[in-house]
Amino acid sequence: MAAALERFLKSSTYLGEIPSGALLLNGNALYPWFIVVPHGDYTEWVDLPMELQQLLLTDINTLSAFLKGDDKVEKINVASIGNIVPQFHLHVLGRSSGDPAWPGPVWAHPDSKAYQEGEIEALKTRLRETLEGFVAA
Amino acid sequence: MAAALERFLKSSTYLGEIPSGALLLNGNALYPWFIVVPHGDYTEWVDLPMELQQLLLTDINTLSAFLKGDDKVEKINVASIGNIVPQFHLHVLGRSSGDPAWPGPVWAHPDSKAYQEGEIEALKTRLRETLEGFVAA
Repeated sequence: MAAALERFLKSSTYLGEIPSGALLLNGNALYPWFIVVPHGDYTEWVDLPMELQQLLLTDINTLSAFLKGDDKVEKINVASIGNIVPQFHLHVLGRSSGDPAWPGPVWAHPDSKAYQEGEIEALKTRLRETLEGFVAA
Repeated sequence: MAAALERFLKSSTYLGEIPSGALLLNGNALYPWFIVVPHGDYTEWVDLPMELQQLLLTDINTLSAFLKGDDKVEKINVASIGNIVPQFHLHVLGRSSGDPAWPGPVWAHPDSKAYQEGEIEALKTRLRETLEGFVAA
């Protein structure tokens, strides 16, 4: 695994690869929260080669469609922020009006919950079955 | 102007049109903060027709290049959140390590500052001169 990914793995789990890069799951189980990390030394969206931006656009669509399949998801948030970790990464996550941070942003919200045993494996199975272009780790 | 835009104009100024839709300036002068609102009844990124997504991708690039031309901008944030206003809109804004919300997110941060007379007109002039595809209001 690339060194650039290691910084993310303090708070996330590596799920596998999608066309635009590594697919991570944020460790906060309060939200279905994916993080996409394209491989390469990029900081801003505009720094990504156009071919990679196209793959990212496709992955925004496939991840959003996956999140829409979750009855609890009422709104999808897509964001590249990176004020703390400058390595380019994109958040794609599901929100619901009952979640702790609603309607505020999840970033910097203090509440957190750990995943229970088996939950991440179950998610990976669902991704393997339904997320186009996903190759599980 | 479309009715969908009116909700945004309580806190933003309409600057004009870019290829993917209306270009607004958030009224908080603490950050150079653009909001892009594609025309049409869309909520999620994935709801936008692919042609419109391509225009949005182009506009992310041109707006980011514009922000990179500002010496004070150290990081660009690109985000579609919409938990409060569901009409699809994309934030493209510049951050610096000296700004009030740094390194936290700007959304839901309480600090705000009004634009001074002439500042928005000066910005529009710079956009007219340098932002590809911009048609000033």
